[in-house]
Amino acid sequence: MDFHDMIQSLAVRNNNKIVMLVSDGIGGLPMTPGGKTELEAADTPHLDALAKVGVQGMSLPIKPGITPGSGPGHLGLFGYDPMTFVIGRGALEAAGIGFACGPNDVAVRCNFCTVGADGKITDRRAGRIPTEESAEVVKTLRAVKIPGVEIFVEPVKEHRFVVVFRGEGLGGNVADTDPQVTGALPLDPAAHDEAGQKTAEVAKEFFNQAKKILAVQPKANCLTMRGFAKRPNLPGYEELYKLKAAAIAVYPMYKGLASLVGMDLVGQPATLEEEVEVLHENYEKYDFFFVHFKYTDSRGEDGDFDAKVKMIEELDKAVPRIMELKPSCLVVTGDHSTPAKMASHSFHPVPTLIVSDLARTDACQAYSETESSRGGLGHFEAKYLMPQAMAHAGRLEKFGA
Amino acid sequence: MDFHDMIQSLAVRNNNKIVMLVSDGIGGLPMTPGGKTELEAADTPHLDALAKVGVQGMSLPIKPGITPGSGPGHLGLFGYDPMTFVIGRGALEAAGIGFACGPNDVAVRCNFCTVGADGKITDRRAGRIPTEESAEVVKTLRAVKIPGVEIFVEPVKEHRFVVVFRGEGLGGNVADTDPQVTGALPLDPAAHDEAGQKTAEVAKEFFNQAKKILAVQPKANCLTMRGFAKRPNLPGYEELYKLKAAAIAVYPMYKGLASLVGMDLVGQPATLEEEVEVLHENYEKYDFFFVHFKYTDSRGEDGDFDAKVKMIEELDKAVPRIMELKPSCLVVTGDHSTPAKMASHSFHPVPTLIVSDLARTDACQAYSETESSRGGLGHFEAKYLMPQAMAHAGRLEKFGA
Repeated sequence: MDFHDMIQSLAVRNNNKIVMLVSDGIGGLPMTPGGKTELEAADTPHLDALAKVGVQGMSLPIKPGITPGSGPGHLGLFGYDPMTFVIGRGALEAAGIGFACGPNDVAVRCNFCTVGADGKITDRRAGRIPTEESAEVVKTLRAVKIPGVEIFVEPVKEHRFVVVFRGEGLGGNVADTDPQVTGALPLDPAAHDEAGQKTAEVAKEFFNQAKKILAVQPKANCLTMRGFAKRPNLPGYEELYKLKAAAIAVYPMYKGLASLVGMDLVGQPATLEEEVEVLHENYEKYDFFFVHFKYTDSRGEDGDFDAKVKMIEELDKAVPRIMELKPSCLVVTGDHSTPAKMASHSFHPVPTLIVSDLARTDACQAYSETESSRGGLGHFEAKYLMPQAMAHAGRLEKFGA
Repeated sequence: MDFHDMIQSLAVRNNNKIVMLVSDGIGGLPMTPGGKTELEAADTPHLDALAKVGVQGMSLPIKPGITPGSGPGHLGLFGYDPMTFVIGRGALEAAGIGFACGPNDVAVRCNFCTVGADGKITDRRAGRIPTEESAEVVKTLRAVKIPGVEIFVEPVKEHRFVVVFRGEGLGGNVADTDPQVTGALPLDPAAHDEAGQKTAEVAKEFFNQAKKILAVQPKANCLTMRGFAKRPNLPGYEELYKLKAAAIAVYPMYKGLASLVGMDLVGQPATLEEEVEVLHENYEKYDFFFVHFKYTDSRGEDGDFDAKVKMIEELDKAVPRIMELKPSCLVVTGDHSTPAKMASHSFHPVPTLIVSDLARTDACQAYSETESSRGGLGHFEAKYLMPQAMAHAGRLEKFGA
């Protein structure tokens, strides 16, 4: 029996709310073996109080030893096996700018490049043309028209932009047109399979029209296309969990990922405090809330241990206002660890806390890596966290008689 | 996505070294419930010091409740699912005498037997003919010649020997010729599939020639053939992990297993002390070192608790000299447990310690079963230990963006 089929058959609707508070990259490392992690060094009285009545465990984002990117990290948290549901590069880039790909969309990462009179590439990144300039050039490409296909052209950063082709029968299996070297012509888009054939033709037409438009641009007179991808074919939250789900996030990437699984994007918060207010405002309208806090990851990526500690303390301060809502199940976790010591995502598992009237309280006295590693939830793959949350909110029926 | 494909795509080359110290059968049991295991009774100051800064967990060689033989036990440690990659009996027997089967080899376990004038078996084990006598008879079989096939005939112990056929197009799927009862003729080798057909013909020709040669032998005048097997088709360490790997072992079985996954066999050590010196001598030439210590298993198999404790203390004494090399990742583990109380391999999980600058130190204060069972690595299948070691040595890149 497929696990998703099981979840789908057992999920029930009721009024019990689930709040999943994701502190990006929260897991850490001691700067010196034997020392304290960022989370252990932080003063977190509210989370620690919840730890005493809740239950903790270690969430493994993918498999032991594997460091996840944000895409697979969040897919796991949302309950999808990140080794089964892979988000192609184009779809991830689109998600990253908050563009929600639909089922008929093929997303492509594009790079501006410069070519000589012979059409051969002289700079594969168009001199990393500044973002503002690039965005203006990107907009000129919206003039491209192809019958039967809707086209979206969106700036990203510097020479990078996203093109989405929307239409019936467009497959995602098309080769990159970037030859990877200068002195070569951009490649023709080549289909890897039959479904990719129509996309390849559309892409070629797009390229031809775009090239004419770009001819007048001194800095970025051509483009290459990479990572053609459809959105992963995954069941949404409503279908899978019978949950009306809302995503509350500041950054486009996390909004994009949430929209891939069918969450509504609510509010326009700019801070964690504002995110919690958006949660309050929308609390009656939804069953499930994904609340994303970015800065634990950002300060970890900076390699700044003390700044990450401060961000964890910020997180802690938001907890009482969340708990005013008395959710049936509060989950506190992260999509991966980002130890300041490594200044990057890491493979270490993520301390995870569930607070619920149905939690079987364990011996943990604080929310921390050391405590979580011996907690009542054990060590589990992140994809099993959603079923745990559902169960702790009384939203999963018995399997079998 | 297949896990090995993922590992292969994420593995990177660098200069970070991994030492995997495998103390065979190290896990144990208290002689009386509630007492101490061999490891807990042993005085192990060096391992305990490492436990305070490292991270521990419980390695499950195969699945809960399953007792592994040395073959599957080591395959798991080397990162191959022992339920997917099965080493056929012939290939394991060959490995056991340190014979490295190549991709065109079919290995067969042979038994000397005795037959009467009618050709029917009178003793299936040729009276367990003594090893030295048997070895002399085995050598006479090297006179067998078959066009297009290279043949290796190697003694094992008592009535047992190994035959390896090397040649193009030889399949391993051939039935045993041992009828399993006395009073019956040895069976003709029968192919189970088309690929086995040529092997069956070769085996029949070998049997016919061998029988003539053995006719003059009073004690062992015939043979049976069992466990036809090709080596498992597994990716080697270089291909899978991008690791140049060395095996340092005293016993042929472990050298054979290591060679199946592409490790180089280095040195001719006879003691643990010599193994550690071989490690020092070869340290610059390799990325990964499998160091095998046999005697914890041997004394466990003897049912001698105190002697196993002493062997664990020997192991501990070797640790400082290993740590002089400052490996990026040291793993201390076993391929299975061998409790003296059971005088055999057992199903119990194996205490496992990782020491690395990237280890998330847990609360463990000693290297032991009790501490390991609550360690930061959790309980995991042995096949995930290599990815953990790779990650702790900074040799795996991020999955997804």
